[in-house]
Amino acid sequence: MFKSIGIIETRSIAFGYEIADKLLKDYDVELLQCKTKCPGKFIIIICSDTQNVNDAIISIKRHKNLIGNLLISDAHQKLIDGLKNKFDTYKNGAIGIVESLDIVTGINSLNKILKNNNVNLLKLNPSIMIGGKCYFIINGDLSSVEQAIFGGIDKKRLQTSVIANPDTELISKL
Amino acid sequence: MFKSIGIIETRSIAFGYEIADKLLKDYDVELLQCKTKCPGKFIIIICSDTQNVNDAIISIKRHKNLIGNLLISDAHQKLIDGLKNKFDTYKNGAIGIVESLDIVTGINSLNKILKNNNVNLLKLNPSIMIGGKCYFIINGDLSSVEQAIFGGIDKKRLQTSVIANPDTELISKL
Amino acid sequence: MFKSIGIIETRSIAFGYEIADKLLKDYDVELLQCKTKCPGKFIIIICSDTQNVNDAIISIKRHKNLIGNLLISDAHQKLIDGLKNKFDTYKNGAIGIVESLDIVTGINSLNKILKNNNVNLLKLNPSIMIGGKCYFIINGDLSSVEQAIFGGIDKKRLQTSVIANPDTELISKL
Repeated sequence: MFKSIGIIETRSIAFGYEIADKLLKDYDVELLQCKTKCPGKFIIIICSDTQNVNDAIISIKRHKNLIGNLLISDAHQKLIDGLKNKFDTYKNGAIGIVESLDIVTGINSLNKILKNNNVNLLKLNPSIMIGGKCYFIINGDLSSVEQAIFGGIDKKRLQTSVIANPDTELISKL
Repeated sequence: MFKSIGIIETRSIAFGYEIADKLLKDYDVELLQCKTKCPGKFIIIICSDTQNVNDAIISIKRHKNLIGNLLISDAHQKLIDGLKNKFDTYKNGAIGIVESLDIVTGINSLNKILKNNNVNLLKLNPSIMIGGKCYFIINGDLSSVEQAIFGGIDKKRLQTSVIANPDTELISKL
Repeated sequence: MFKSIGIIETRSIAFGYEIADKLLKDYDVELLQCKTKCPGKFIIIICSDTQNVNDAIISIKRHKNLIGNLLISDAHQKLIDGLKNKFDTYKNGAIGIVESLDIVTGINSLNKILKNNNVNLLKLNPSIMIGGKCYFIINGDLSSVEQAIFGGIDKKRLQTSVIANPDTELISKL
């Protein structure tokens, strides 16, 4: 069964810690991230089944300190791992880089890619902020990476690259 | 005897290093912090008795590269430790989070709290800049934390939260 | 023989990785740095002989995602090391701090200083961005540092300091 992810951004750090604690106590959710972002915003990322994440987000939706929230249903395990800063390492083959101007587009594209293609996740830009730029790097054999990048995702709001056989020096600097 | 703290913010990195060295040589002060801050500012934090810190600040007060300065008299040892990035670890009980829009309010509130209450300091946001947002997290039994937060400090310019029994998962993400 | 350095700044992360790979494959260059910079820019620093670096830069010069580029001919080995975050440690004597408002001035001044004086490089601000502030710290005997700072470089667009005998506490905080 796929899990869902909730991303919550608040204006206040004190309030952010308070609702992170409340969500952990009131709902059966896992806390993937919980930290301040320059300049003084606060990000909470939770993970659970869709019902729990949805209820958790609804419970805080009207708070004046909330900037925004985002629910990603049916999140791939590699996306969840990436949000915990656990990534695959490069093996062989091609890499694909996808860059979006907002996190909603970025995370949704990544999730779609991971679910429909046999690729690994090498990097997900940790500067997760609603409204912020987002990028990720996938790895797999060339045809899988090409299919992932050129196949199913809407590229209107994305910048993408496929590198067929990345240089070892580049891989060491990813 | 309590010590005092001086926070000095300069426009120039080169000048910042120069006066940090001068203050160390001319006055009997300890250097707690001395580093650049995005985008190109420089912060010096010194510690000594009030007379020394005061004299040190006065000696550089008219320099054109100075953005601002701040003297905190009678600084609690835990505040001094916090400015050296030495913190207590969470034991039991409640946590309190206090957030201010400027460092003067934040540091002064923290100092007052530490002096008047039996609480530990778990975190002090290291992005110490005059004009910048500031937050800290204290820990102690619930009545101490409540007294610390709701008792003696002026809350007009602060955002605060008290979490009575913080979730273990939240503590691990502090 | 001196090497040359090329610094390339792009608007797109995906494009940045792509051309970093292309330059590594098409030209005999070493990749010193290759990373994203807040807020979503991308920096590539390559090193090789002047011909290779020049050809590499020309090959991508018309790309719409390019923000700018910079070629530093005859780069001193200590500058190259500094761009790889390898620095000398403080020994004795004076330190000199040089700060510029743009990277072109900063890097060129550093290179000139290293080539004409017997000084070491203690620090080069890693926030290398075209248009960004830049600073570095050199170390050597007082007369060498003074000559380096007051001698050959054009100081109009630089802020500088020389500290004859820096305090141990300051050195530990560099």
